Amino acid sequence: MRLARVAHAGGVAFASVDGDELLEIADHPFGQPNYTGKRFSLADVRLLAPILPSKVIAIGRNYAEHAAEFGNEVPQSPMMFLKPSTSVIGPNAAIKLPAASQRVDFEGELAVVIGQPIRNVKAAQAPAAILGYTIANDVSARDLQKADGQWGRAKGFDTFCPLGPWIETAVDASDLAIRTEVDGELKQDSRTSLLIHKIPELVEFVSGVMTLLPGDVILTGTPAGVGQITDGQTVSITIEGIGTLTNPVQNA
Amino acid sequence: MRLARVAHAGGVAFASVDGDELLEIADHPFGQPNYTGKRFSLADVRLLAPILPSKVIAIGRNYAEHAAEFGNEVPQSPMMFLKPSTSVIGPNAAIKLPAASQRVDFEGELAVVIGQPIRNVKAAQAPAAILGYTIANDVSARDLQKADGQWGRAKGFDTFCPLGPWIETAVDASDLAIRTEVDGELKQDSRTSLLIHKIPELVEFVSGVMTLLPGDVILTGTPAGVGQITDGQTVSITIEGIGTLTNPVQNA
Repeated sequence: MRLARVAHAGGVAFASVDGDELLEIADHPFGQPNYTGKRFSLADVRLLAPILPSKVIAIGRNYAEHAAEFGNEVPQSPMMFLKPSTSVIGPNAAIKLPAASQRVDFEGELAVVIGQPIRNVKAAQAPAAILGYTIANDVSARDLQKADGQWGRAKGFDTFCPLGPWIETAVDASDLAIRTEVDGELKQDSRTSLLIHKIPELVEFVSGVMTLLPGDVILTGTPAGVGQITDGQTVSITIEGIGTLTNPVQNA
Repeated sequence: MRLARVAHAGGVAFASVDGDELLEIADHPFGQPNYTGKRFSLADVRLLAPILPSKVIAIGRNYAEHAAEFGNEVPQSPMMFLKPSTSVIGPNAAIKLPAASQRVDFEGELAVVIGQPIRNVKAAQAPAAILGYTIANDVSARDLQKADGQWGRAKGFDTFCPLGPWIETAVDASDLAIRTEVDGELKQDSRTSLLIHKIPELVEFVSGVMTLLPGDVILTGTPAGVGQITDGQTVSITIEGIGTLTNPVQNA
């Protein structure tokens, strides 16, 4: 099932996506969703970030070729940092380049959306705790990231966490093609099978540190090929079996 | 005014604290609170974390003597990182020492509680955006902090952000004594006037990166004297004009 969050003429709602048709969900998409019976066409709604997470946990250096492109070693334990919930935007919303940075990069990533409150879950039990998968752009002010040491500023600006276009609940995410294009030019081209720390292991690791709540999002890391985005460009991240997350880029 | 959040026989509520008496607030403590007319005695309630923040922004190395005690330089820009909202606990709740760490430290800090949604606020306008001040313990797994590079794990465990005992809205926080004791032994003894980046500057800096929402909390950094806490100990942080935040320490 594809779970979206949409703005339509009557307000904002979760909905399941069936081809070009949306079926409105009454409350939230966890467990067995209740449908209102209302239907919309994809063309008549605006897709929003498919979830508003209470927290976004991101994993650094989780593809060997990406770690190598900045001369970093692969960390033994997953390297964990947080992006603020206020950095989340939806598909087609603009990534705003802050004046404080001279170099903002895209980072295409597979995102895991948590479906239940969990703590200390073992890898084998992780799949039952996952609602589904979406696409994330871990937008990063590369100059500030290097200058600050801690990444709270560089990765925390408003608009620096595009999510979408929807949550796919039925896909096996262990070996999906992931590609990022800027203005149609291919920049990242990898597979999720190259994740160093795999999805079940990441859920075990993160939930061993902090309680995860329904809707919380884990960004699994970006493959090689990251690069700068500038005012007027458009960045699109496609993950096989999920869809494409597209965002324009503008000066703030 | 002192704003607390309490569990009483009838449920959970915000309340203003007047000596030993609590006046229950109907909804939330922002703006002009509405009172229900119910009164409680402090002895009959359990104090909870005075706010459940949508995000906790912490500032590293913001007292020169603390930066020096780990051989670090003082950063030119405030060094910003995030603690997850799930790490927040209230007064007298136990800090749980995770098995993954051999060295967990206390860090007593002044915490700023935001009162309105703000973005790009100038330092001169910061005071109007602040609801008040409370006390925080930026509990840190020091060994993991060193090993990981990014501090998302080391500072993100459940129970690693005690807040309380209440929010003081009327205090001038620019020069308050801050002291931390472990089992009654004085460990940190400083003044908030020694903050390198002052409170209005921090609000300007953080709100220039991310939208701050009512209830969001900024931890302003810890003075020199941090040290380990172990199973069975009790850590108390006192800030002049605010109160004392006390938490026992237990193995998880």
